[in-house]
Amino acid sequence: MTLRALVFDAYGTLYDVQSVLAKAEALCPGKGEVITQIWRLKQLEYTWLRSLMLEYEDFWEVTGAALDFALRAAGVEPTDAIREPLMDNYLHLDPYPEAQAALAALAAHKLAILSNGSPRMLEELLRNSRLDRWIETAISVDGARAYKPHPSCYALVEPALGVQKEEVLFVSSNSFDAVGAKAFGFEVAWIRRGSGDALATMFGMVRGRAEELGHAPDHTISALTDLPKLLP
Amino acid sequence: MTLRALVFDAYGTLYDVQSVLAKAEALCPGKGEVITQIWRLKQLEYTWLRSLMLEYEDFWEVTGAALDFALRAAGVEPTDAIREPLMDNYLHLDPYPEAQAALAALAAHKLAILSNGSPRMLEELLRNSRLDRWIETAISVDGARAYKPHPSCYALVEPALGVQKEEVLFVSSNSFDAVGAKAFGFEVAWIRRGSGDALATMFGMVRGRAEELGHAPDHTISALTDLPKLLP
Repeated sequence: MTLRALVFDAYGTLYDVQSVLAKAEALCPGKGEVITQIWRLKQLEYTWLRSLMLEYEDFWEVTGAALDFALRAAGVEPTDAIREPLMDNYLHLDPYPEAQAALAALAAHKLAILSNGSPRMLEELLRNSRLDRWIETAISVDGARAYKPHPSCYALVEPALGVQKEEVLFVSSNSFDAVGAKAFGFEVAWIRRGSGDALATMFGMVRGRAEELGHAPDHTISALTDLPKLLP
Repeated sequence: MTLRALVFDAYGTLYDVQSVLAKAEALCPGKGEVITQIWRLKQLEYTWLRSLMLEYEDFWEVTGAALDFALRAAGVEPTDAIREPLMDNYLHLDPYPEAQAALAALAAHKLAILSNGSPRMLEELLRNSRLDRWIETAISVDGARAYKPHPSCYALVEPALGVQKEEVLFVSSNSFDAVGAKAFGFEVAWIRRGSGDALATMFGMVRGRAEELGHAPDHTISALTDLPKLLP
């Protein structure tokens, strides 16, 4: 293939969604871990369920509903005083430590994001994290009114970037997303994050492994900084 | 409404999917609980993901793939010697203790199942459990080649039973299924199963509560035997 663009997933791939843990623990002592884990699990479940029910709501709404579920599951009433700082944190997620250096090393290529995030969430996240220095275009699935891994999400990339699917290397640490991107026809690099410790969490056990859905990724790497060696 | 049919979900509603726990524990000592929990979590995830990817495979295939994932997550290689007895158990699930009496009490009505299960799985399950004495029709989502909560699944009921959606009371203990059925237009009874203990399991924490997806059920009950008092 002639590589013309690298397209990154955002949450969990460039940005560490577990970085809300400290704030959750400060707001709900002793419950930060379970709230963070269930929040992320339900956030993804709700994207899938809403897509299937043909009742799309944008990712800000879905993320808020998943937070309400997680708080209640932990026995915490979702008041504004707890909800608002946690939701706000989603606009200020930490990039993974290697993200800046990895993107800088790839800057000769067209770099973009394809994310479940709403346009506003992605815009704020890119600006707050300064990753907008490297990422040329942020594509939101909002344009398809469905969530990954629905093929209509991945189909947004070609018109947005003016490339063909064979010219795209898609990068995600979310195993279901790597499957969906591969099924659509991208070349795919799956970032297999997480140590033995991470696999001991609920999220790690349920989502931190290769899926049994066919469509194996072309490349399995352990960090964003492994990407340059995949390129021609 | 004029009630003409009660339509039941199968797995988790009439049949206890946790009843595979003893066999899983015997085959994989010390790991039965985690295998059972992850198996069920991934089984549902894979129904949603395959539906979204437009890559339907029937529930036997999906259940097997989810088992492979769960075994590997628990550090167990999915050999035939372990897989086959666990898969076979899915054809011999125990009905909940109150199921026979509850269905007998409702036998004046048209009783049916609408399930993710494949036609063969439902046929064997009904025969092996003797619930075929009460259940007139088992409708598989296989006819829609999509999984719940896609509306095309619920739409199978009207032609199969010759009723209108307003004449159906849909019964499920799966909160996402209760949401999907309500969104489709059925009257819905959600069976909220599980004690404080059950909520402490991974499955209970992630799936054992009302969803934050709108479409609240019309009725929340605690067992199948609560159904007769809902009827006119």
